[in-house]
Amino acid sequence: MFPFSYCNPTKIVFGNGTVTQTGAEVAALGLRHVLLVYGQSSIRRNGVYDAVTASLKAAGVAWTDYPGVSPNPLLSHAVAGAAQARAAGADGILAVGGGSVLDEAKAIALGARAPHAVWDYYEGRATLGPGEALPLAAVLTLPATGSEMNGGTVITHDETREKRAVIHPLLNPKTSVLDPETTLTVPPTYVAYSASDAISHTIESYLTRPPAFLPVQDGYAEGVVRAIMAATERILAAPGDLEARGAMMWAATLAWNFLGSCGVGPWSTPAHMLEHPLSGLHNVPHGAGLAVTGPAWMTWECRRRTDRVAAFARRMLDVSEADDAAAAAEGIARFRAWLKRIGNPVTLADCGLGDAQIPELARHAAILAQAWATGAEYTEETCAAILRLAR
Amino acid sequence: MFPFSYCNPTKIVFGNGTVTQTGAEVAALGLRHVLLVYGQSSIRRNGVYDAVTASLKAAGVAWTDYPGVSPNPLLSHAVAGAAQARAAGADGILAVGGGSVLDEAKAIALGARAPHAVWDYYEGRATLGPGEALPLAAVLTLPATGSEMNGGTVITHDETREKRAVIHPLLNPKTSVLDPETTLTVPPTYVAYSASDAISHTIESYLTRPPAFLPVQDGYAEGVVRAIMAATERILAAPGDLEARGAMMWAATLAWNFLGSCGVGPWSTPAHMLEHPLSGLHNVPHGAGLAVTGPAWMTWECRRRTDRVAAFARRMLDVSEADDAAAAAEGIARFRAWLKRIGNPVTLADCGLGDAQIPELARHAAILAQAWATGAEYTEETCAAILRLAR
Repeated sequence: MFPFSYCNPTKIVFGNGTVTQTGAEVAALGLRHVLLVYGQSSIRRNGVYDAVTASLKAAGVAWTDYPGVSPNPLLSHAVAGAAQARAAGADGILAVGGGSVLDEAKAIALGARAPHAVWDYYEGRATLGPGEALPLAAVLTLPATGSEMNGGTVITHDETREKRAVIHPLLNPKTSVLDPETTLTVPPTYVAYSASDAISHTIESYLTRPPAFLPVQDGYAEGVVRAIMAATERILAAPGDLEARGAMMWAATLAWNFLGSCGVGPWSTPAHMLEHPLSGLHNVPHGAGLAVTGPAWMTWECRRRTDRVAAFARRMLDVSEADDAAAAAEGIARFRAWLKRIGNPVTLADCGLGDAQIPELARHAAILAQAWATGAEYTEETCAAILRLAR
Repeated sequence: MFPFSYCNPTKIVFGNGTVTQTGAEVAALGLRHVLLVYGQSSIRRNGVYDAVTASLKAAGVAWTDYPGVSPNPLLSHAVAGAAQARAAGADGILAVGGGSVLDEAKAIALGARAPHAVWDYYEGRATLGPGEALPLAAVLTLPATGSEMNGGTVITHDETREKRAVIHPLLNPKTSVLDPETTLTVPPTYVAYSASDAISHTIESYLTRPPAFLPVQDGYAEGVVRAIMAATERILAAPGDLEARGAMMWAATLAWNFLGSCGVGPWSTPAHMLEHPLSGLHNVPHGAGLAVTGPAWMTWECRRRTDRVAAFARRMLDVSEADDAAAAAEGIARFRAWLKRIGNPVTLADCGLGDAQIPELARHAAILAQAWATGAEYTEETCAAILRLAR
């Protein structure tokens, strides 16, 4: 095992109907007035908005609405939200939504208190100091990103369309309410995108970590991925299956609360790196984009880490081939077929993209390779070569 | 999935050599003077005491020694430790040792601040209020109990020899240093006891939870148990195998940081309940006692939860029998044989106990069944019947 330091103080309140406890949980954090951050109209339609605001009222917590978070949330909207939080005198943020809403809520929490411009933190030109973010609580309505139990946030720059990330413990939600009932209205396409995203969070460290005896981390990843696949199958077969909705919600949280990658040593996230330009430049849903870049990247990675791709194939996809290369190839084929069967695009063409877009996508991915220290091997040429495997 | 609330704010600092960071971590908690709680002479012999105190000195943290914690730590020693912490003006506790030392350190942390008598909390007659325990840091030198990342503590009453537990978030260590190098001197017998204890923590909820679709929790438990078994094999084959020591350390932490049992619904710990009288009354090492009571209890439990014991057999022990009852029986036999092969006692006779002791052991276990709400079925008669399966 490799050295690590881990602390995850987020409190999880999980269970059917727990959305009605939101107000009490927010009040227990000592908050009196929150900026209520959400997306479009879905939480108005499915009753979550009413349940949350009723619970805030009952708990004596005031709120200021801040709707309009978009998928791939924009810097400008986050900056405006921070101004609104300050103007309203909010002492905290309450995010109600999926990964995009949580990610923007974190940017708002930071923007409302931190001394530098919001984008400076995402560009790595500034670092959060103690107390430089408003406390954040969350009600998760779309499991996928793990943002509900980590300190990560991804924001898209309006003009350059670059997606950048900040990861900081101050941005961990203090409390996250996970009520599977709120996910019953998540449509099949987004169930598929979520599965793709959550699986990617787990297998990128699984596939790229250094060779070592890491049975705890391998077992954790294998358990999470198998759980996501099993839950996804059940949800798509019966969207009202609350047990499966709950399992998916918890699996996605554990997939990216950073616990599973503790001790795995250096690892990287090339599938995410290759995906961000797809969603940033072309508004492809993030999970859908990962279903395109993931298998393509694995095919490329497979030449040097045949052992790990073969382990993925055998332990997560029940491939029984004895030969590593054959097992790895079969695993990638099965994984792509599964992603497609559940409703993801799996080629650039499926997203309406092709050779014409590859150079710009590759250029942006190569910039991220630098920013994220993904590896010097991910040059513009290499990224283009990988993307061509996704045509 | 079943509802739960989970928050685990313990910071883990993991890695070879991290013991030298102890002082800096303690100082970062704002502590200026700690009661240094440890056991017998082993940390003096293996250099851990010197490394810890040198790091405290370097960080400007004063300490008062409080050695002498015994296996199955005693109430009287904890109460005296709390008095010493108060007398010394300690603003925190630093535990250096295994589960016994951590458990007693928690009792001391509580005793130094809480308004009621220490045993009142263990008997359930008093409950900790906010701030009613000194902050605690820990250096773990024997992985097994998970005490380094949970709020649990077990103490033995000097006169009655009863073992009782308190579980409270105030008793979570603020920071735990996990340095695999400190475990290199753990002898093979204690490696075996540790494996038995950590596996038991994981499989008791796995075997007794209600029937439900719980792939996340099942996968987590299966990964942890397989990791413990693989790491144990490697440590016993090569005691200097640091990779395996590290894997064992992290696996034991994850086995009982309460994350794995989130959402599994009602479950109980009958093997622990049946074991506590063995260690409380007869000073059998806790993990060794579990190797005796665990398989016996499984044999009994198997009649009503054949499905779960069969799942344990297939997914953790690679049993391939198609019939559930046959798979379960084969799994229990393999598990007992494995526990024995690595160096555990697996019968009461192996511990020098027999029919003469069963009535008193059963009486104490049945009292615990009430205290822990393990289940009304665990009467004195039933406990005796299970213990007879361990002869």
